[in-house]
Amino acid sequence: MNAAPEPPTPLAQWLHAQSQVGQSVARIDTPALVVDLDAMERNLAHMAAYARAHKLRLRPHAKMHKSAELARLQMAHGAVGVCVQKTDEAIALALAGVTDITITNQVIAQAKLERLARAVRELPTRFGIAVDNAVGVTRLVEALTAARVDGEARIDVLVEIDVGQGRCGVPPGEAAVDLVRLIAQHPVLRFGGLQAYHGGAQHRRDPAERARAIAEAAWGAALTRERLLAAGFEVPLITGAGTGTFTLETASRVWGELQVGSYLFMDADYARNEAAPLAPLFEHALFLKTQVMSRGPQHAVCDAGHKSHAIDSGMPMVWSPPGLVFANGGDEHGVLRAAHAGHPLPSLGDTVWLVPGHCDPTVNLHDVLLGVRGGLVEGTVERVIRVDARGAVR
Amino acid sequence: MNAAPEPPTPLAQWLHAQSQVGQSVARIDTPALVVDLDAMERNLAHMAAYARAHKLRLRPHAKMHKSAELARLQMAHGAVGVCVQKTDEAIALALAGVTDITITNQVIAQAKLERLARAVRELPTRFGIAVDNAVGVTRLVEALTAARVDGEARIDVLVEIDVGQGRCGVPPGEAAVDLVRLIAQHPVLRFGGLQAYHGGAQHRRDPAERARAIAEAAWGAALTRERLLAAGFEVPLITGAGTGTFTLETASRVWGELQVGSYLFMDADYARNEAAPLAPLFEHALFLKTQVMSRGPQHAVCDAGHKSHAIDSGMPMVWSPPGLVFANGGDEHGVLRAAHAGHPLPSLGDTVWLVPGHCDPTVNLHDVLLGVRGGLVEGTVERVIRVDARGAVR
Repeated sequence: MNAAPEPPTPLAQWLHAQSQVGQSVARIDTPALVVDLDAMERNLAHMAAYARAHKLRLRPHAKMHKSAELARLQMAHGAVGVCVQKTDEAIALALAGVTDITITNQVIAQAKLERLARAVRELPTRFGIAVDNAVGVTRLVEALTAARVDGEARIDVLVEIDVGQGRCGVPPGEAAVDLVRLIAQHPVLRFGGLQAYHGGAQHRRDPAERARAIAEAAWGAALTRERLLAAGFEVPLITGAGTGTFTLETASRVWGELQVGSYLFMDADYARNEAAPLAPLFEHALFLKTQVMSRGPQHAVCDAGHKSHAIDSGMPMVWSPPGLVFANGGDEHGVLRAAHAGHPLPSLGDTVWLVPGHCDPTVNLHDVLLGVRGGLVEGTVERVIRVDARGAVR
Repeated sequence: MNAAPEPPTPLAQWLHAQSQVGQSVARIDTPALVVDLDAMERNLAHMAAYARAHKLRLRPHAKMHKSAELARLQMAHGAVGVCVQKTDEAIALALAGVTDITITNQVIAQAKLERLARAVRELPTRFGIAVDNAVGVTRLVEALTAARVDGEARIDVLVEIDVGQGRCGVPPGEAAVDLVRLIAQHPVLRFGGLQAYHGGAQHRRDPAERARAIAEAAWGAALTRERLLAAGFEVPLITGAGTGTFTLETASRVWGELQVGSYLFMDADYARNEAAPLAPLFEHALFLKTQVMSRGPQHAVCDAGHKSHAIDSGMPMVWSPPGLVFANGGDEHGVLRAAHAGHPLPSLGDTVWLVPGHCDPTVNLHDVLLGVRGGLVEGTVERVIRVDARGAVR
């Protein structure tokens, strides 16, 4: 094989995107992931007001947008910091100026812990990390020591408890006490509290089911806190809660911090949930602009398939024109059919706006988001938002 | 919002990947997309030998790997060129030195046709494109004229016929004649033949169903060719055929060129197909290296979710260790359970190798592939393969 001539870069896309700033929405080449800045800013303000009103810390999950610009925007609107799921997401955002980042996930690979330790030593960012096993604590301390990170409380360590998702975390109760005891033996660490996030509950359609799941989660988190207090450990924080359930975590009074992510953009999957009582009304702010590039007698084909939008949580909704249903057309195509017999189909070249099925993995497919001011019809491209941590899976 | 300080680049990942060249597979940080070069080269040789033996042109579909290095490798092993689905895939590969590229898809956006026309004018690459509507022909000619591309046969134009997929293409028969007549009016264009690809047939599990679908496709392609001959038009080529059915297109003697893509890497979806008679035995050459980062009593959690591998065609297979089943753990996690009660689960830190469900959109999630020589156990990283057209969805 020939050697690759030079490193890869999406610079061309970036320059192309930059060249669209100030242009009308109509001129955006497709498919393109577009943020309705007006809608996004209303979502931002609603969540900030909600957290303030309930005296809760707000730590939005940046795994959704992977963008330092949006993380800084959330922090400028009252967030104490952001969460991420991956070591390299944390490092990418810290290098881009995000000053408070919690990795709400287990990291046990030495290579990753070495990178994190260097970041703790060299960057002005406060880092946190989750553990659910003594190995995670021991290897973290080894990596910090090897990187000559000394002093006290250089990184916050959250103990994750499994509050119902059945994925990561120790069972509620005594198991957490052993981990906190281990953390307390290492002054370089600070026990930051309990990570109690029920991801599965977010997407249950029936609000009563979500309420049952979060009631169980609250019980597990409160029980674990009691055991820790009985063992003589303060619990500075219980953190978790996603966009689908945060009003329930709030009502429980067990959680002190919200890790909501999707509220900023929303998606078709959340739209399929029945609204939770007392939840602010968030708007769709993330759209995929597509174009009809082929027409059949009974269908139209748009130029966006699942290399442009993630379908793990179902197909996208057709936002406009109305009366269309999106069917899977493969990696590069979407097949549009009339929702009701006789409904007109769009013509060749027409614009079709989609609301992606799931915002997080959809954003991760794109290097940039086009921020539009003034709506999807008359608006103009105001800014290009970098997806700094796109593809940062390690 | 603050302006983004500088353009995004996966340079860091690239340098990290480069730093792994010469290292053992064991040291590859996870999740990472790994190519078994020995297996890939056997797949490459099998398909090249098959095309030679059947005197067929081989034009592999680069939408799968999006890599100029792999496209050049395929052409060094007898391929006449490659196909892509998107204008910017064609331009990215042409800029990286691929000299013969057919866009097997409709392009009707002026902005894209302008970019393509500039590429036709400025690059030494031969380009082809598909059309299924007069608008596509007219706008292509307008863009070539505006870019001052003159002379004869500067781009090959394929007329796509819908041979059963129900997506793009004109119906078999007379409709194609009108389009070819229009193409013939423009000397700058060259009628390249018929694009007759039945994507849907690739993934039908039962070989008899695939055979029925391709028999119908062959009938439509042959009928269309007859109509064109009767109207006085030569048909230089009928092109199509994917990895799941190419032995059927070959047996029909209707097709003159194969557009197979997945054969190079293979995936779990193709593995779920019953093998077609007379097909070379292709091996899995694309693997996702993952690590167990959390353990429960009845499950293990690996560090790869569907931001690391596409699940549109089903979950990945667990390649090793044996006896494990992969369940969806969300964007960043995979949940591993024993296939049979009592089967041992991997331990914290263990490596788990996955075969992605669908290779094309999985590759599109990654900026680089790590090419390993000597197998997944004892091997070393020989080269880093760039995914030049990653994210090139326009």
